[in-house]
Amino acid sequence: VPDGDTPFIDLDTDQQRPVQVAILVCPGFAPADIIGLHTIFGILPGATVHLVWKNLDEVMGIPRFPSRATTTFDDCPRDLDVLFSGAVLDDIFEDAETLEFLADRGKRARWVGGSCAGSLLMGAAGLLRGYRATTNFQQRHLLPYFGAIPAAGNVVEDRNRITAGPLTGSIEIALRLLQDLYGDELAREMELQIEYAPTPPFGVRSPALAGPGLTAQALDHGEAMGAPFLGVAERAAARLGVAVGG
Amino acid sequence: VPDGDTPFIDLDTDQQRPVQVAILVCPGFAPADIIGLHTIFGILPGATVHLVWKNLDEVMGIPRFPSRATTTFDDCPRDLDVLFSGAVLDDIFEDAETLEFLADRGKRARWVGGSCAGSLLMGAAGLLRGYRATTNFQQRHLLPYFGAIPAAGNVVEDRNRITAGPLTGSIEIALRLLQDLYGDELAREMELQIEYAPTPPFGVRSPALAGPGLTAQALDHGEAMGAPFLGVAERAAARLGVAVGG
Repeated sequence: VPDGDTPFIDLDTDQQRPVQVAILVCPGFAPADIIGLHTIFGILPGATVHLVWKNLDEVMGIPRFPSRATTTFDDCPRDLDVLFSGAVLDDIFEDAETLEFLADRGKRARWVGGSCAGSLLMGAAGLLRGYRATTNFQQRHLLPYFGAIPAAGNVVEDRNRITAGPLTGSIEIALRLLQDLYGDELAREMELQIEYAPTPPFGVRSPALAGPGLTAQALDHGEAMGAPFLGVAERAAARLGVAVGG
Repeated sequence: VPDGDTPFIDLDTDQQRPVQVAILVCPGFAPADIIGLHTIFGILPGATVHLVWKNLDEVMGIPRFPSRATTTFDDCPRDLDVLFSGAVLDDIFEDAETLEFLADRGKRARWVGGSCAGSLLMGAAGLLRGYRATTNFQQRHLLPYFGAIPAAGNVVEDRNRITAGPLTGSIEIALRLLQDLYGDELAREMELQIEYAPTPPFGVRSPALAGPGLTAQALDHGEAMGAPFLGVAERAAARLGVAVGG
């Protein structure tokens, strides 16, 4: 059985420019928020995808999905094309070693990206101060605590910061980054290769379409999940010197 | 750090009916094809998601993503609500123990689902004979070798078989299964909770939209990946007694 390095897509040699991608895989990471970006870069012969964490021990994702890093923080290339995170549990937001790693790689990375609460994590590392950004709708009001400016759009791009909501957010970020890093032709072909042809069945895919009743219900049902993030955001604001709602 | 069992969504008690879901996680599995379904069921308090394989040893996904099963074939409940697989490498299609497991659980499961080449794998286990089904466009012509009838649609449902293309396929299958297992209201709320509001950027997301030129290029670039599946399909047809193109 191959070790997983086999590229799926047989690209032209001139499109195989070396690209270094690092994705955070820590205890309590959300695999659904990173796997689109992971897969899209992972099937390109020229790209190296590092799943990064402090060590290579097994970690458990949320919901329950075992995985582990393939590259430690120490071994991660210092100059990255893409630094990315999806949602992680709130305790990671206050882990000094993780924030230091993200801040260090992020300040030199060509692109810094986050989907769902991964956007907020980049904010906690000081990487969204003064940038327009987005995240999942349940936590969008917390962006200002990290000095970010909430903006509309499925994918929000401000200079080299790129953020989105959950699940399909990382697919759309990846397609945009392919366009920047490899050009239009490859990015277009990838949209077809992965048949990114979604048809949401119920017509309630955003708060605007769902209306106030269903949106309130969804916020209520998600409250237990989101609750710890307010404290995290308030402490981040204090640490970063961000004044909110003053 | 929690072990990953924390449910995200605080549902009403009457929606917490016990549902058993099994998803194949084997060497060479494609995490992107299963993670939507995994996450959508995984955040429901009433559902138990089993990642299943012969043992609990680490396996490497494609592209490179370490994981492992959480439940062995032997320990997997005999009566499942959902049996599901995404794409796997071709050697799994001829692994007797895997095919036997799928055939056994599949014949009693309330739903049998597959996305991308996971549909073909269910076919190899004899579970699609006489059923309408779909898979990724690159391999759709192979469905008849497994006795399946290729059908149009993002998600194809025929009695209790449900199949789709890659990546977002497992999200759309999961939303449909929630509707069947938990009812309309919960399924609609989930579409909003996960903000399944995709906006494919390039307008070439299917062969019909991409046109013959880009489609031919995509097929050419994907040929190396798909090549082993023709032999697999031919041998499956012989084993299953399916006459193709006669």
